[in-house]
Amino acid sequence: MHQTFDAALEMNLLHANQTGADHNREHFDEWGITCLNLMSSPGAGKTVLLEKTLEALQHQIKMAVIEGDMTTELDADHLRQYGVPVIAINTGRSCHLDSRMVAGGIHQLKENYDPKQFDLVFVENVGNLVCPAEFEVGEHAKVALLSITEGEDKPLKYPIMFQEADCLLVTKLDLAPYLEIDLKKLENNVRSMNPSVKIIFLSAKTGEGLNDWFGWVKSQIKMPVCLNG
Amino acid sequence: MHQTFDAALEMNLLHANQTGADHNREHFDEWGITCLNLMSSPGAGKTVLLEKTLEALQHQIKMAVIEGDMTTELDADHLRQYGVPVIAINTGRSCHLDSRMVAGGIHQLKENYDPKQFDLVFVENVGNLVCPAEFEVGEHAKVALLSITEGEDKPLKYPIMFQEADCLLVTKLDLAPYLEIDLKKLENNVRSMNPSVKIIFLSAKTGEGLNDWFGWVKSQIKMPVCLNG
Repeated sequence: MHQTFDAALEMNLLHANQTGADHNREHFDEWGITCLNLMSSPGAGKTVLLEKTLEALQHQIKMAVIEGDMTTELDADHLRQYGVPVIAINTGRSCHLDSRMVAGGIHQLKENYDPKQFDLVFVENVGNLVCPAEFEVGEHAKVALLSITEGEDKPLKYPIMFQEADCLLVTKLDLAPYLEIDLKKLENNVRSMNPSVKIIFLSAKTGEGLNDWFGWVKSQIKMPVCLNG
Repeated sequence: MHQTFDAALEMNLLHANQTGADHNREHFDEWGITCLNLMSSPGAGKTVLLEKTLEALQHQIKMAVIEGDMTTELDADHLRQYGVPVIAINTGRSCHLDSRMVAGGIHQLKENYDPKQFDLVFVENVGNLVCPAEFEVGEHAKVALLSITEGEDKPLKYPIMFQEADCLLVTKLDLAPYLEIDLKKLENNVRSMNPSVKIIFLSAKTGEGLNDWFGWVKSQIKMPVCLNG
């Protein structure tokens, strides 16, 4: 968020975005889709995590991805190898996805597929530990990733992302032996910002923690409504 | 930058920021100060680099730091241990420093010190690989850091930062043996965005490359004007 705008303009912007996000969420709800919004600094491992997740869960859960990047379809192309629909959105100079951009992705999904077939849509946001946390896109839960290479102080320095997250993935755990990082302090710093957030330590490289993540993802899927009780 | 604003508003915002940046630069020029703006993703190593730089150069160059963070003075407190003036600016919800905020820092510096004593002011920006590149603060050169843990594709995915940088520091080189990273490809990706940028590979941990960085910093210092030719 750019502080040089006046407060009223800022409120209007966030209000318009929220209205769009609520509209997107109504579509997802109508189609029985759970939407998860993945956010982190650049290079924390969002795309690799999605690759591992698509690979592991594609026979259990019907998934699609809305992939946000400033430029290029590099990440979208990586993910298309897994045979799931991947809608690429280039944000240009924008440092985050907003609900209007994701609405465009939803419309593309609806034009090309029967949306009711999907259980889960991942939104991969632009790599940025600040602004994506303030712009809802219609997700049901926010997933933040923090690489241990970024340091244990980041929850204190970038509080909004950690306050907003429903699930925090601490990534690149395989690098712990080569860093001076206090993982307990990192966890305490996260808890000081958000006492109830689900925290999972993982390494996409070694596989450590991935089953916990897959379990959390499955717990977020909407159950079919049982009309007869 | 938030794309949901209309183009005219965006131009006004950037224009106002640029006017402020030019004004800040006039102050720096009047006092014979070189200003370097350090930018990167969160956790790429800006603060540790500054610690090493203050330690190595404090007896050769008179330095001060304007330290931007959303919240906390954690980094400012680290740097104060080196006995140089450190002005902390909390940006609140803002994802980058702008010229107005840095003007506030300059005024604090002027109130508490004779500014003409300084050769060099470092501005450490908020950790963000997107927006800081678009908001000049009055610097004479932009220094971008990219940790090798972020991956070799980042110059392609976040082009503005790499296009704007005068000097690019590729950090955390000591972690190369534990990552699947192609450093030549990373360098080529940087060059494809900015053929003339100065690139230095370094590790603040092992010290590799730091002398090249110190040399570049010294090359940026303004020479005293020789009035008698």
